Amino acid sequence: MRLLIVNVNTSTAITRALAEQARAVARPGTEVEGLTPRFGPESVEGNFESHLAAVAVMDRVMTYERPYDAVIQAGFGDHGKEGLQELCPTPVIDITEAAAHTACLLGHRYSVVTSLDRTVPMIRDRLTLAGLHTRCASVRASGLGVLELESDPTAAARAVAHQARAAVERDGAEVIVLGCGGMAGMELTPEDTAGAPVVDGLTSAVALAESLVGLGLTTSRVRTFAVPRPKSVTHWPLSPALETPHHP
Amino acid sequence: MRLLIVNVNTSTAITRALAEQARAVARPGTEVEGLTPRFGPESVEGNFESHLAAVAVMDRVMTYERPYDAVIQAGFGDHGKEGLQELCPTPVIDITEAAAHTACLLGHRYSVVTSLDRTVPMIRDRLTLAGLHTRCASVRASGLGVLELESDPTAAARAVAHQARAAVERDGAEVIVLGCGGMAGMELTPEDTAGAPVVDGLTSAVALAESLVGLGLTTSRVRTFAVPRPKSVTHWPLSPALETPHHP
Amino acid sequence: MRLLIVNVNTSTAITRALAEQARAVARPGTEVEGLTPRFGPESVEGNFESHLAAVAVMDRVMTYERPYDAVIQAGFGDHGKEGLQELCPTPVIDITEAAAHTACLLGHRYSVVTSLDRTVPMIRDRLTLAGLHTRCASVRASGLGVLELESDPTAAARAVAHQARAAVERDGAEVIVLGCGGMAGMELTPEDTAGAPVVDGLTSAVALAESLVGLGLTTSRVRTFAVPRPKSVTHWPLSPALETPHHP
Amino acid sequence: MRLLIVNVNTSTAITRALAEQARAVARPGTEVEGLTPRFGPESVEGNFESHLAAVAVMDRVMTYERPYDAVIQAGFGDHGKEGLQELCPTPVIDITEAAAHTACLLGHRYSVVTSLDRTVPMIRDRLTLAGLHTRCASVRASGLGVLELESDPTAAARAVAHQARAAVERDGAEVIVLGCGGMAGMELTPEDTAGAPVVDGLTSAVALAESLVGLGLTTSRVRTFAVPRPKSVTHWPLSPALETPHHP
Amino acid sequence: MRLLIVNVNTSTAITRALAEQARAVARPGTEVEGLTPRFGPESVEGNFESHLAAVAVMDRVMTYERPYDAVIQAGFGDHGKEGLQELCPTPVIDITEAAAHTACLLGHRYSVVTSLDRTVPMIRDRLTLAGLHTRCASVRASGLGVLELESDPTAAARAVAHQARAAVERDGAEVIVLGCGGMAGMELTPEDTAGAPVVDGLTSAVALAESLVGLGLTTSRVRTFAVPRPKSVTHWPLSPALETPHHP
Amino acid sequence: MRLLIVNVNTSTAITRALAEQARAVARPGTEVEGLTPRFGPESVEGNFESHLAAVAVMDRVMTYERPYDAVIQAGFGDHGKEGLQELCPTPVIDITEAAAHTACLLGHRYSVVTSLDRTVPMIRDRLTLAGLHTRCASVRASGLGVLELESDPTAAARAVAHQARAAVERDGAEVIVLGCGGMAGMELTPEDTAGAPVVDGLTSAVALAESLVGLGLTTSRVRTFAVPRPKSVTHWPLSPALETPHHP
Repeated sequence: MRLLIVNVNTSTAITRALAEQARAVARPGTEVEGLTPRFGPESVEGNFESHLAAVAVMDRVMTYERPYDAVIQAGFGDHGKEGLQELCPTPVIDITEAAAHTACLLGHRYSVVTSLDRTVPMIRDRLTLAGLHTRCASVRASGLGVLELESDPTAAARAVAHQARAAVERDGAEVIVLGCGGMAGMELTPEDTAGAPVVDGLTSAVALAESLVGLGLTTSRVRTFAVPRPKSVTHWPLSPALETPHHP
Repeated sequence: MRLLIVNVNTSTAITRALAEQARAVARPGTEVEGLTPRFGPESVEGNFESHLAAVAVMDRVMTYERPYDAVIQAGFGDHGKEGLQELCPTPVIDITEAAAHTACLLGHRYSVVTSLDRTVPMIRDRLTLAGLHTRCASVRASGLGVLELESDPTAAARAVAHQARAAVERDGAEVIVLGCGGMAGMELTPEDTAGAPVVDGLTSAVALAESLVGLGLTTSRVRTFAVPRPKSVTHWPLSPALETPHHP
Repeated sequence: MRLLIVNVNTSTAITRALAEQARAVARPGTEVEGLTPRFGPESVEGNFESHLAAVAVMDRVMTYERPYDAVIQAGFGDHGKEGLQELCPTPVIDITEAAAHTACLLGHRYSVVTSLDRTVPMIRDRLTLAGLHTRCASVRASGLGVLELESDPTAAARAVAHQARAAVERDGAEVIVLGCGGMAGMELTPEDTAGAPVVDGLTSAVALAESLVGLGLTTSRVRTFAVPRPKSVTHWPLSPALETPHHP
Repeated sequence: MRLLIVNVNTSTAITRALAEQARAVARPGTEVEGLTPRFGPESVEGNFESHLAAVAVMDRVMTYERPYDAVIQAGFGDHGKEGLQELCPTPVIDITEAAAHTACLLGHRYSVVTSLDRTVPMIRDRLTLAGLHTRCASVRASGLGVLELESDPTAAARAVAHQARAAVERDGAEVIVLGCGGMAGMELTPEDTAGAPVVDGLTSAVALAESLVGLGLTTSRVRTFAVPRPKSVTHWPLSPALETPHHP
Repeated sequence: MRLLIVNVNTSTAITRALAEQARAVARPGTEVEGLTPRFGPESVEGNFESHLAAVAVMDRVMTYERPYDAVIQAGFGDHGKEGLQELCPTPVIDITEAAAHTACLLGHRYSVVTSLDRTVPMIRDRLTLAGLHTRCASVRASGLGVLELESDPTAAARAVAHQARAAVERDGAEVIVLGCGGMAGMELTPEDTAGAPVVDGLTSAVALAESLVGLGLTTSRVRTFAVPRPKSVTHWPLSPALETPHHP
Repeated sequence: MRLLIVNVNTSTAITRALAEQARAVARPGTEVEGLTPRFGPESVEGNFESHLAAVAVMDRVMTYERPYDAVIQAGFGDHGKEGLQELCPTPVIDITEAAAHTACLLGHRYSVVTSLDRTVPMIRDRLTLAGLHTRCASVRASGLGVLELESDPTAAARAVAHQARAAVERDGAEVIVLGCGGMAGMELTPEDTAGAPVVDGLTSAVALAESLVGLGLTTSRVRTFAVPRPKSVTHWPLSPALETPHHP
């Protein structure tokens, strides 16, 4: 089967890292394709960026020309999964939900450690809509932006470990979710998390996507995620209509 | 003061209707400007369309060149308000929330009557995130699409009245919210709603926008709606980079 | 239009202060009338006092003899709004709800700073019934009673600012609501609130009352707030039957 | 021990009926005293009447001159319990809460059958604040007013039985709560309730009051129900200051 | 009437202590019988032990040969009450629920102080299912195991008092619930709890059991707690089929 | 890897059917072992049976002598998963939770169709504790017992289809969960469910178990699911101590 891993930002380096991480856990026979949006922000840390990235992700998937079996939206706490579900005939997995579902199978309550304070409410909102908030003990911010998490893995791991331990010791967490695409591949020791297992959204999403495909299940077309009604949509998809950008 | 009323679909006829309705309730001294997105769907009835419209709305406001005092996003149940709040220095009012806040001031519970069954979960989700769901008795669909509501006002009013009465008599509603931009200006008699007052999102939003401006209040910059961090955002805003569309 | 601002305690000085504050934000053409209950406590800081004040407020409004367009109940966290809604043909606005509605338009979560610890649960209960609690980050007590807040504005502002900052920094608040009528007119700097905007219940209520009147909306008579059934009510209203009090 | 049963309306016939019903279940050694408010409505069916009755109840208890061990507020869905808790040194039991607590001990979910449709939201609100709503399957109205329930017991029982069966068969109720003081002493057969046991608020309250007194427990004075702070309360209690009413 | 107090662990010393404590508050005429399970753990501090104890409790009651009027399951936070309700014709009272119901009658919010950190989520889950969680301010662990609480009453009281004060001062509790059978008979001063009254599950359960029996009420047989359908149940009850154990 | 599928009832025929169904979806390399409890009920349809089965399941797994990689508890809506998680070093998957997690990935809301009305509250309770209830539109009963579902597949499918369509058309479900082990292998057409995809607990559990094992994740030992403390547990495990039963 072929899985599309769609990065939410325009960094091809991050896309490559995500694809590698996905390949590392994919079953034999699963092919992973990483896709980078053709427009939008270089990192997603707020609502405007997330809304724009949502459309850029849909645009990228809609202009992908080969067959695929499932789509993974690789932005933690980001918008757009619902629209993607309407557009794709295959299962669509959001890494936020994938991580939370997996965490719920491992402990009584879980906490998310993310990048900046400002993304905490976004993540809470996504979990609330997904109906996965009642077992979320807390969402904590490491204080590092997405690109800082990428660029200094040691500092990143230290900041994340600090919040992870606080989540276990003060908030009642029993499982830690890495709440940022930029944490892909971060290695934490049991000490770092006061013994709590660590769940990563992307690898969880790969496993869930493989499961759904294996079970022959896909998105319900009843009501919410029905195919969009036929109508005029000006300039859609957007990327073919965009002039070559003048900035590098 | 100048209020921007941003339509979420590309129909200039609807934009004109919205602006007229807004002007009819605006105070003396309030100037209303209707804006139409430069790309996106001709009507918004699902998640994909709503996500795309959210970005088209932000794009339209970002490329508006005159000063303004508040922005009203005129799509019922639609995405994007949070991003707009980050981008605009002024208050941003979403008509879904405006209607629900107003309805809460008038009765113990309210119901929303909207267009299609598939938009019901979208509206519920917006109300849940806005924290306005606990007094929502029900969201009911008239079964008519946005453009059908526009084009046959008599049939539309009949279908809405049918659901409104059911909401009052079976669901415990005491106030009826018109849950679709296409219902702008719909006239319902007390009989149509079993005596319940009718709240319209756009006119409620105009009044709330005027109130906030009058009180000198605007969006908090603490955390969630802080101005986006400076970063590279490829092709943003999108519309200047879009080639002239080839379809009318 | 004429707005009635009904104080919940018997202090005419506070009534005057409330009326002044209301006039300062009222639109041209809005006339503000301050009313003082004819019996009840000199300040409301608990449930007994609040229940008694609720009836004294209704009594005062019922014995007011001129026409009016809306009623504002000016007690934060107090009982009685529902009864008043049944009795008055006009909109009735409660300052607790007005403040919370306004705060929801400005930030993701808000906190209330009130007078005494014992009123915290009362305020929480009012917000819960109003369906406005899910976005309330916390209700914090300044530790000062209503009359202390009145009498020493400097100490009051310092105590409120201390709690406001804690709400922003520890509880996740993005907006601060002044949760006591005795805080009317309190001036807080952005520093005092760690940058969060400050919402006042009375001025919010004035704006909302003007909005509803402007939109031609009033309380639904369906079910909860229907006019009371005709029946014998001994000694109602109470004040005409009360002998002249012997204490000043 | 001596229990005060305080009627919420001014009908001495109802007070007598309540006291009799209480005596029928009270333990040997428990003395029951029925009290009638000195002002207020002849029946409580809405918020205004309930708020007024709340104060009339407090007034009546405050002017009672003998010692007592517990107070029972005998109005279903009514306001005022919290104020009474502040004023009385003894336990205070509200019949709404007493019934719901008892029902929770008997089945997975319970339904309330009350008088009029307009009191349904009042009862729901009381249960919500009491934290007893999550196991409430429904609150249903018999359609009969309080005095009609009193005056025609056969019609009343038939109307209540109709709703009770609907609650069991359609709403998932396993226990039926009689939700109106006017239903005191109503006899329902197992057939009337599709086999569900019937819980009455007043008798439940008597048993709970006896239990608390027996265990030596009373209201916590920490925070919410602390004794009111010393302050000037004009005309309180109200009844001594009321002139003899001129209507019978 | 005869009440069965069923210990959840195999310690006959604890059974005796429970029975004594129950007798101390039982009314004249109430006979208390303490029962000890015939298999299972010597103390219950986790889910496995609680599940096993649930069955051992049912087994013990099913093999009790004399008539009884009510059953009290004397394990705090433990499983099994629902099964017992199906099996017994009489009321069944769980001490967790009994304590929470009683605490709700005394203050606005209550906290539970229990033994170990690992039992906190178990207690929360029981309260959630019982619909009694919304007024629970916190569940705190003393850090002492069940048998440690038994064996060193002074250290136990000190540890419990420490958490009780924290619950009142930091979590908003107004009532303290002793959340472990091993705390039976613990004496706490008002100072120990910052003035909050102390509720014990077992004595509360005795009072509630006596109340239900006095009112002639028992478990509803509609739906959830209907008598089990006739079917083959291998080895049930278990204890008669168990060989004499070889360990003491 | 080796998966243990533990039936909750004593029917070896059902155990065989479960194992076959699991093998049909298991990946190459996954070995499935079906286990039957050594005591307990022949079918689980209520709380007593479920509590007893929970212990019988733990007993069976504890006396299993070969290595295994994950355990699946194959009773829908049943107790005991938490205890099993403490006892097993591997992941433990409950089919109720597995089905609900999977359903959440496919549609906005799901409904469960189960056997008897009396098991509906049990299933609701399990979903509530698992934090998976907010997206559950309804739990509906087919009216057939577990063994009837087994014995007459055609009647069973018809009864389930009837409720499934009602769930989609009236309750807002977009996905149907088969809520009973006895429905294993039931074939429903898209017409049967008004187009909604059908999720089965056992096959979902197999896929999730394989996913967790593949990701190297197992139950958190922090707090709730820590290994039981060392202590005396009389007669545990139970089955070795049970005499040969005299009934067949």
